[in-house]
Amino acid sequence: MPVPPVPGEFRSGPLHLHDAALFTDLYELTMGGAFHREGMRETATFSLFARRLPPSRGFVVAAGLEDALEYLGGLRFTSGALEYLHSLGRFDAAFLDHLVDLRFTGEVRAVAEGTVVFRDEPILEVTGPAIEAQLVETALLNICHLQCVLASKAARVAIAARGRAVAEFGLRRSHGSDAGLKAARCAWIAGCESTSDVLAGKTYGLPLSGTMAHSFVTAFPDELEAFRAYARAFPDAAVLLLDSYDTVEGAKKAVTVARELAAAGQSLAGVRLDSGDLLILSRQVRRIFDEAGFPEVRVLVSGGLDEHDIERLLAQGAPIDAFGIGTRLNVSADAPSLDLVYKLVRYGDRDVLKLSEGKETWVGAKAIYRMRDADGKVAGDVLALEDEAPPADAGESLLQPVMRNGELLRPHPPLAEVRRWCGEQIAALPDGLRRLAGHAEYPVRPSDGLRARQAEAVAKARAMAP
Amino acid sequence: MPVPPVPGEFRSGPLHLHDAALFTDLYELTMGGAFHREGMRETATFSLFARRLPPSRGFVVAAGLEDALEYLGGLRFTSGALEYLHSLGRFDAAFLDHLVDLRFTGEVRAVAEGTVVFRDEPILEVTGPAIEAQLVETALLNICHLQCVLASKAARVAIAARGRAVAEFGLRRSHGSDAGLKAARCAWIAGCESTSDVLAGKTYGLPLSGTMAHSFVTAFPDELEAFRAYARAFPDAAVLLLDSYDTVEGAKKAVTVARELAAAGQSLAGVRLDSGDLLILSRQVRRIFDEAGFPEVRVLVSGGLDEHDIERLLAQGAPIDAFGIGTRLNVSADAPSLDLVYKLVRYGDRDVLKLSEGKETWVGAKAIYRMRDADGKVAGDVLALEDEAPPADAGESLLQPVMRNGELLRPHPPLAEVRRWCGEQIAALPDGLRRLAGHAEYPVRPSDGLRARQAEAVAKARAMAP
Repeated sequence: MPVPPVPGEFRSGPLHLHDAALFTDLYELTMGGAFHREGMRETATFSLFARRLPPSRGFVVAAGLEDALEYLGGLRFTSGALEYLHSLGRFDAAFLDHLVDLRFTGEVRAVAEGTVVFRDEPILEVTGPAIEAQLVETALLNICHLQCVLASKAARVAIAARGRAVAEFGLRRSHGSDAGLKAARCAWIAGCESTSDVLAGKTYGLPLSGTMAHSFVTAFPDELEAFRAYARAFPDAAVLLLDSYDTVEGAKKAVTVARELAAAGQSLAGVRLDSGDLLILSRQVRRIFDEAGFPEVRVLVSGGLDEHDIERLLAQGAPIDAFGIGTRLNVSADAPSLDLVYKLVRYGDRDVLKLSEGKETWVGAKAIYRMRDADGKVAGDVLALEDEAPPADAGESLLQPVMRNGELLRPHPPLAEVRRWCGEQIAALPDGLRRLAGHAEYPVRPSDGLRARQAEAVAKARAMAP
Repeated sequence: MPVPPVPGEFRSGPLHLHDAALFTDLYELTMGGAFHREGMRETATFSLFARRLPPSRGFVVAAGLEDALEYLGGLRFTSGALEYLHSLGRFDAAFLDHLVDLRFTGEVRAVAEGTVVFRDEPILEVTGPAIEAQLVETALLNICHLQCVLASKAARVAIAARGRAVAEFGLRRSHGSDAGLKAARCAWIAGCESTSDVLAGKTYGLPLSGTMAHSFVTAFPDELEAFRAYARAFPDAAVLLLDSYDTVEGAKKAVTVARELAAAGQSLAGVRLDSGDLLILSRQVRRIFDEAGFPEVRVLVSGGLDEHDIERLLAQGAPIDAFGIGTRLNVSADAPSLDLVYKLVRYGDRDVLKLSEGKETWVGAKAIYRMRDADGKVAGDVLALEDEAPPADAGESLLQPVMRNGELLRPHPPLAEVRRWCGEQIAALPDGLRRLAGHAEYPVRPSDGLRARQAEAVAKARAMAP
C-alpha cells in the first residue's frame, strides 16, 4: 500500500524525512535572510567536490545523486517549518514569506552515479538563485558525503576480494537507519554481491544473504541438534556457523549434517567461520569437507574483517569462497569522512574563491574531461571551465546536466546500470590506483583557461587582503 | 499538522522508517523460521553491551533507549513486508502466518539514558519469547550503537572544553539524516551547548547556533560590505567569519562593523576563525578587539577540530570563548564504531554462552551495582546476576525495568533530565577516567554468584568441544 505524499517530505526509499527543508544548518537560513534583505538575487554556482582525499583513498566513487535530486525536487517549507522558524525570532517576515513559495528552480550538472572521481573534481554543480543554491548546501553534502564514503570503501573491499563474493552485513553498526540502507546500496553499486539488510533488499531489489548467529547454536543444548534444526528449516540454503565452541569440532558436526542432507537428496550450502586464525581454520575446515567428499560446500569467513584482511588471506592462499564484511565497511572505519565541500565558485558575472590557508579552491563552473589510453585504461583528466572550448585531447566529458528549472531531465538510471558503470570505471583504473596501500597519484591537469581565470581571481582577492 | 500513524512504521522524530520490521538482518528471520519450525517457544534473555572499548574510550555514555523502546512498541509486519518475505521463497507459510500477529510482548530492563557504563555492562536486556527477542537484535544494536558512539565522543569534547561552549555543527558529514539528528541529540545530552541542525532544534527543542559561511563573504565584491550586510540583517546576533582572505585584516574590518553597531546602540556578538594557527590568530584577534574597546566580542574557532585540539588550545591559553565542532565529532572519527553486541545469555532454564576465541561472554540476566566513595565519586561496579542477592556493599542498582508485556512502564524522561543525569554521571567520574588519553581502568568486579554460574556454564560448553 503506497503511502500518500506529504508536502515537504524527503523520501529515500522507506525512509521519509518530514520537514526536510529544515534538514540544514542554521547559517544557510541566516545567510538566506541576509541575501534576501540585501536584494541579492543573482545566479550563483556552487561546486560539490572532495578538497583532498584521505591517505588511504586513491579515488572516490561518486554516489548519492539520485537522493540529492529527489531532495531538490521536493524542497518546500511546510507551515510547521515556517512556524518553527518564526518562533526563533531571528527572521524577518519578508524572508519567511519568501520561503513559503520557495522551490528549487536551478540547474544541476553532475557525474553519473558510480563514476570514479579525484580531488577537486566536482561530483555535482548547482547553479541557481543565490538563496536557493545556498540553502541546499547542508543536505546535498550530507546525502553525497555518506554515499561517496560508503561506495569508495566498498570498492576497496570488492577489489581485495578479486571476484570472490562479498556479503555486506554491517547494518547493526551502520550509523543509523539511513546509513544502513545506503551501505547496502553503495556496497552493491561498488561490487559486493549481497546484503543482509532485508529492508535494503526490498527497497533496492538487492540479493539477500544470511547465515545464523551464535545465539541460534547456543539456544540448543547441543550444537549438532542446532545444525540439524537449521538444515531442516532451510535444506537447500543452510550455512552453518562453526565457531560457537570449537571450529574444528563444529566442522565435524557439520559434515554429519552434510551427509544427512545428501542422503535425502539435498546439500549443505556452506559453513561460516567467525573467529580465530582464519587462514589456519579455513584450511582445516576445507580439508575436513574435501576428505568427507563435500568439495562443493562453500567456506565463508567473517569477524571484524576489512579489505586488508581479505587481501592478506587470499595472498596466503586461504581456501575461502566468500567474505562477510560488516562494521569496518559500514562505518568506513579507516576513513569515516571525506573532505567533501560545497563552494561558491561564481556569483553573478564574477568568479569567486576564498584564500583561507590550505583551502584555496578553483573558480568557475567546471567541466571534467577524461582521457583513455590505447588499452582503454583511464590516463588522466583535464579540469576545465564549463564555458571554454574542450582541450584538443579531450576525452569523455563527465559533468552533464541532470536537472533544469528544478525538473529532472531524465529518469534515474536503474541501480543495475549504476553498478555496471561503476564496475567499468574501476576496471579501467590503472593497477597502481587500485592498490589498497601506497596507491599511485592520478594526473588531473587544470586547463589553460581555468588557470588564467584562477590567477585573475586570486589577484583580485589578494588586493582585498594587502 | 501531525502525520497520521502508519502501521509498521518506526518514528524517530521527523524520521519515519516504513516497514521497520524489515530493518533487520536476514538471519534474524531465518533463525526465527527455524525456531518456529522446531516449536522453540521458550523465554530467552539477550544482553546488549560493549564487549570491549576502543583504546581511546575510558567509558561509554549509554544512549538510544527512547528510540529502542519506540521501535519495540511499534513492531509489526505490514502486508507489504510479508509479501516481500513470501517472494523470497525461503520461509514456510506457517512462519509467515506467525509474523502477521507478531508484536513485541517481552520485558526490557535498561540503564537510564545518559548513564556511564563500562565493558561487559548491559545497556539493556531483553527477555521474551525467543523469536521476538532474536528478531529485534539488529535494530536495537543499530539504534543503541549510533547513539552510544556519538554521546561517548561528545562527552570527551565537552570535557576538553572545560565549561566553554561547544556548538555541534557537523550535520553535513554525519552519516545520513538519522545520524545527523542523533548527533545533535547526543551532543546536547553529553554537554555541548547548541547545534546548527535546524531540524534537530525543532525536534528536540535544542538551542540553535550558526554563523556564516565563506560563500556569504565571497558573494560580495568586498569583505567589509559582506560583514555590514550580515550585521544589518542580524544586528544583535552576528558572528562574522574572518578568514576568507586574511584573518587579521578580516578582524580589522569586523572592528569597523562593531563600531558601527555600537553607534546604533547594538553590539557585535562574535567572530569566527576557521583556518590557520588558531592559537596565534585567536591571540591577535582578541588583542585587536580588546584594544578597540570590544572585550565582550566573543572569539569562536572551528576547522576540523576534535577534543585533543580543544585541550591543547586551552592548555596553551588561547583566548577562545567557544568551539564549533563538526566532522570529527559527528563521525566519531577516532572510534567510529563500538564493539556493541547482543548476546543470548539465557534460554529457558539454561544459562548459555559461546566459547569463540576472544569472545566469551558472561551468562545470565544481570544487575549492575555502582559504589561511590565519600566524595560522591564513583568507585567501582559489581556485575551480578539479576536473581542473586545484592552484594553487601552494593550501591545504586542501574538496570531497571522499563518495558513489560511490550508496554512502556513510564513515559520517556525529558531530554533536559537525560542531559542533567549524564552531566552528573560524568562529574562523578574519577579524574583519571576523564583523561582524554591514557585513562585509568575502572574496576568492574563480577559477583561471586556470577562467577559460579559462569564456571558451570563454561564446563558444560567445554564438554561439547572436547
